[in-house]
Amino acid sequence: EQVAKLLELKARLGVDDGRPRFLLKTPKGTRDYGPKQMAIRERVFSTIISCFKRHGAEVIDTPVFELKETLTGKYGEDSKLIYDLKDQGGELLSLRYDLTVPFARYLAMNKITNIKRYHIAKVYRRDNPAMTRGRYREFYQCDFDIAGQFDPMIPDAECLKIVYEILSALQLGDFLVKVNDRRILDGMFAVCGVPDNKFRTICSSVDKLDKVMWEDVRSEIVGEKGLSTEAADCIGEYVRLHGGLDLVEELLQDPKLSQNKLAREGLADMKLLFEYLMLFGIADKISFDLSLARGLDYYTGVIYEAVLLQQQNDHVEEPATVGSVAGGGRYDGLVGMFDPKGKKVPCVGVSIGIERIFSLMEQKMEASEEKIRTTDTQVLVASAQKKLLEERLKLISELWDSGIKAEMLYKKNPKLLNQLQYCEDTGIPLVAIIGEQELKDGVVKLRDVATREEVDIRRENLVEEIKKRTCQP
Amino acid sequence: EQVAKLLELKARLGVDDGRPRFLLKTPKGTRDYGPKQMAIRERVFSTIISCFKRHGAEVIDTPVFELKETLTGKYGEDSKLIYDLKDQGGELLSLRYDLTVPFARYLAMNKITNIKRYHIAKVYRRDNPAMTRGRYREFYQCDFDIAGQFDPMIPDAECLKIVYEILSALQLGDFLVKVNDRRILDGMFAVCGVPDNKFRTICSSVDKLDKVMWEDVRSEIVGEKGLSTEAADCIGEYVRLHGGLDLVEELLQDPKLSQNKLAREGLADMKLLFEYLMLFGIADKISFDLSLARGLDYYTGVIYEAVLLQQQNDHVEEPATVGSVAGGGRYDGLVGMFDPKGKKVPCVGVSIGIERIFSLMEQKMEASEEKIRTTDTQVLVASAQKKLLEERLKLISELWDSGIKAEMLYKKNPKLLNQLQYCEDTGIPLVAIIGEQELKDGVVKLRDVATREEVDIRRENLVEEIKKRTCQP
Repeated sequence: EQVAKLLELKARLGVDDGRPRFLLKTPKGTRDYGPKQMAIRERVFSTIISCFKRHGAEVIDTPVFELKETLTGKYGEDSKLIYDLKDQGGELLSLRYDLTVPFARYLAMNKITNIKRYHIAKVYRRDNPAMTRGRYREFYQCDFDIAGQFDPMIPDAECLKIVYEILSALQLGDFLVKVNDRRILDGMFAVCGVPDNKFRTICSSVDKLDKVMWEDVRSEIVGEKGLSTEAADCIGEYVRLHGGLDLVEELLQDPKLSQNKLAREGLADMKLLFEYLMLFGIADKISFDLSLARGLDYYTGVIYEAVLLQQQNDHVEEPATVGSVAGGGRYDGLVGMFDPKGKKVPCVGVSIGIERIFSLMEQKMEASEEKIRTTDTQVLVASAQKKLLEERLKLISELWDSGIKAEMLYKKNPKLLNQLQYCEDTGIPLVAIIGEQELKDGVVKLRDVATREEVDIRRENLVEEIKKRTCQP
Repeated sequence: EQVAKLLELKARLGVDDGRPRFLLKTPKGTRDYGPKQMAIRERVFSTIISCFKRHGAEVIDTPVFELKETLTGKYGEDSKLIYDLKDQGGELLSLRYDLTVPFARYLAMNKITNIKRYHIAKVYRRDNPAMTRGRYREFYQCDFDIAGQFDPMIPDAECLKIVYEILSALQLGDFLVKVNDRRILDGMFAVCGVPDNKFRTICSSVDKLDKVMWEDVRSEIVGEKGLSTEAADCIGEYVRLHGGLDLVEELLQDPKLSQNKLAREGLADMKLLFEYLMLFGIADKISFDLSLARGLDYYTGVIYEAVLLQQQNDHVEEPATVGSVAGGGRYDGLVGMFDPKGKKVPCVGVSIGIERIFSLMEQKMEASEEKIRTTDTQVLVASAQKKLLEERLKLISELWDSGIKAEMLYKKNPKLLNQLQYCEDTGIPLVAIIGEQELKDGVVKLRDVATREEVDIRRENLVEEIKKRTCQP
């Protein structure tokens, strides 16, 4: 980060030889992905996409900007973080803030009542993010959602199964998925005596419990938000609870909570959810946690959030938790907000916090010193003597036409040593060397970069030999 | 299109039951990609990416917006088409207009003097596009570039080889790649007596020759742009020329053109280029065409553009050409514009016009009535009787955990007929059916959807059998 600051300073100062002085940087909160970062990114995406496909998902894409009014009124207090485009005549536009609202707009616009889809794309928030911890103003979201009128909790359980599969496959260490239900939260607020019009604002205070202590949340809801101390303490009793199916059963018998219709519905569904999670064999990683709130306005039922757990052998300087790496929930009302007749399409989904995962993977790669290849090149076409550019061009063309991934140096007369060094640097495993003698004999000298072993291969057998050596059928 | 207009009208009118009246649409010049379009898009991308990788390219990504000043002064007259973001405090930003300028900024910022990379991402232009012909305000670019100081025309020839490989692999019909050189154009303008300060504006008139007749271009450059009729007619003589190596040789002897240093350099390199193209076996698809100009300011050497040729059996109503499907050239000065010391990094690249290719592929698919699958699901987990939800959940979980792509209906008691119908609709090839008897016997009934053949498979052999039947090792 220090280096980044110095570089920015240097760029800001410019130089005094008359060249334009401008900042040579990407916009605040954004970054480039170089080949190494892209290699990691593609590895993570491929794990996630193969999970989504295993669950039968289709894929869609939507524009990076939406009509401004499409986003209006969907994000509560966070609306101030939306990027607007300049009014250059025509429609007023904003950059998408998430993939969920565009998905709901897509469903309503196309009258789709039934779909299971994923969508991986960048979203934009005018936040002040801590980039070192994988938080940006431009960042990827990676969403899987199931829309349609189905029997309760079956798609909801599948979303949790997907979170479990992805976090396991990525091998990020131990994790826990917290679940709760908006109806249980609202029921809890009601029985604790929170006035109806304060549910949402109290909810967003409770949402901070993963970062701050209950005492601080309590003083916020009593002080700033004017809740009675009795109501606050009642909430305090509930939000400390977490457990499994046993806790659900217990709360179904809770003298206060069981009197509330919403809470009863939420608890009954939570019970069903845990039954399905047990059939999926993943209930041990799921924690029913009454402190989980999630800020977004549009959730209507089950909500969840996955967190990585501190490793036993972590260094002390590391942050205690890297925070949420996945989250989601049920939002049965959002699509109806876009339908002219208010027709609802129930939805449940999950969003994988891919940027934090990238960030962790990058740290892991750096620590392990594993050398990441950024190309797939199988062979370098090289020459041992001068004046063989034409022959190299002919040979590489033959290889490309046979589907071999091949490179050559763009020099008329490159030195053999430089050609071999290029292979060392980039991890190319084979070199196909031609010289006067090889051309005369109709062979190519195939060199293994690792072992330095060289054998003459008849030119007509070269493609097959390269495929065999690089394990590509 | 008519339907789209009606839908937009309907959305604009809204309804009168008190729901908010807003346009249910994507912004002008943009579109959603549904699952079918995505399936086509992924097929096209995969063809292109595998070609880029075959040529040893790395991949990078940059933010969707850049500092406004990064884009300033790079696009000449087209700068008015840049989307700016609203000034919400902080930096002034613009959406990227292409991938070339961000690439140059990336190279200068990271002091990279040597890279072969591709970049596939969306770019933004406030144009008035003909969307029916695959032109949008938000559209993909698909760029391959080689940066570095190399011997002449070797990377340039590879770019043309890549265009050839991609257009051949996509099977879009016959095509032609026009090539020219900015130095030959400038030399031609000079020997025809065009004043230096009019080169760029005359060049952008000449650029229209693929759409309008020479007579119209002539009256524009004589009328609006005030060129002498002699100069115009001199240009007119040259721009009608096109051919191969023979034309290059002829022009090297041209009494006027050969007097110009720039033109001589351009022609010498063009000769070299054709020699390399012959070694690659692709010279027959390349046409040296003096009317090719390309609008962008930053080209400094060879330029090229690929066009699809009219099919013999096309309907008359079809447009005569679908226009350019790929283009690019050499831009040796662009990176230097970003370097504080003006240090140059020579670059040559090609951009595949992916949107027009999507558009053609979609038309082709619709015409062929080929059914496009939008998921990869191998098997549907079904039940023949009621009350087997738990058993279906257990079985599908086993299949997912073994890497099988499996779906089930999210109903407690779905009818078998509905389950089979779902397979027909979505192209799922196999159904794994469980009933009381199967559970008792420790088997699963595996049904082939196409042949309707059913066999009992022992549960422990099910995964292997599904893999065998769906050809996945």
